[in-house]
Amino acid sequence: MADSLYKSNINTEFGKKLEFLVTLDKMKGIYRQTLLTDKSRRETDAEHSWHIAMMAMLFSDLAPEGVDRDRCIRMCLVHDLVEIYAGDTFCFDQKAGEDKEEREMKAADKLFAILPKKDGKELRELWLEFEAQSTPDAKFCASLDRLQPLVNNILTDGHTWRKGKVNRAQVEKRAGVIEYGFPNAWQTVCDVIDEAEAIGYFNHEKN
Amino acid sequence: MADSLYKSNINTEFGKKLEFLVTLDKMKGIYRQTLLTDKSRRETDAEHSWHIAMMAMLFSDLAPEGVDRDRCIRMCLVHDLVEIYAGDTFCFDQKAGEDKEEREMKAADKLFAILPKKDGKELRELWLEFEAQSTPDAKFCASLDRLQPLVNNILTDGHTWRKGKVNRAQVEKRAGVIEYGFPNAWQTVCDVIDEAEAIGYFNHEKN
Repeated sequence: MADSLYKSNINTEFGKKLEFLVTLDKMKGIYRQTLLTDKSRRETDAEHSWHIAMMAMLFSDLAPEGVDRDRCIRMCLVHDLVEIYAGDTFCFDQKAGEDKEEREMKAADKLFAILPKKDGKELRELWLEFEAQSTPDAKFCASLDRLQPLVNNILTDGHTWRKGKVNRAQVEKRAGVIEYGFPNAWQTVCDVIDEAEAIGYFNHEKN
Repeated sequence: MADSLYKSNINTEFGKKLEFLVTLDKMKGIYRQTLLTDKSRRETDAEHSWHIAMMAMLFSDLAPEGVDRDRCIRMCLVHDLVEIYAGDTFCFDQKAGEDKEEREMKAADKLFAILPKKDGKELRELWLEFEAQSTPDAKFCASLDRLQPLVNNILTDGHTWRKGKVNRAQVEKRAGVIEYGFPNAWQTVCDVIDEAEAIGYFNHEKN
């Protein structure tokens, strides 16, 4: 069905990009742990990626010097694409995290091969830079990637923390990149974690 | 609840931007007519905006000369924001379309006022440019805004066209901007419309 989509552009640049973009629809079917603030359901990878791209757009003038707004927007848009084949790994699930890197590298090979070479290379490099967190852009984007679910969690009665029986140290570790990647947000992050602790959203059992 | 979110930044630039970004979560609760390609549900405004921002990122080197990739990505990200207060208007619903402009202008006033002035102005101008469709960037973004649901419709058995009893002329009119805004996609658009006609997705009753 829908032969018409590729009829006039098999093996053209346009056709390869279109096939990739059709594949991206799967990002709307990957559900993260984070709840929407209206608590109606969990958010999808596509929604999360859009949200942090908007954060990059608006927060970049409060980011550390040298952070490139448009590059960060692009990095945010693509940072989770490999989950199309690797799935979403819950950030507080240590076991699932163990083979995450290998799974995601295989997924990247499969996914980016759909695109013309130049585009596949660009997206892969942006994703690898995000993962390595060694540049100001990547640290800023990683900060947004941590800040957005933190905000949604405090606005949904600590949903993900309570459900995942997460302790304070785990949340502090996960959010830690924000102190250097987006220092202007750090005080708010600390305030949120203190409030979550005071209300009792964190787990206190010894593992 | 969640006083911690604004505790240390009431009336600061950061606080205003954060409040706006929290408001944006509503984009994940606005459902469009378009189905996801897996047919599991209708897509949200946030998902659609992310999808066409990715299209802008990948298709811009096939766009008419002078189109600015990063500017278009930003325009795609914000083009539907006013729907947070104005709601999604089904593009083939003539009656709902009548007061769309007024509703959306009021929504824009309310929404962009949350932001610091400079940011509110930037986002409003990008949105107004998109709506006016008088620049190459706006025409290209509008083309992506039409192309994405067209692709999803042909991949979901003409869902929106059949449900809305839409005729061929309406679809051709809606997609028309693509011929000039993104000529490299035009042949595929025509192929898709021809296939939809051949299968019988369009309405043939006289209104």
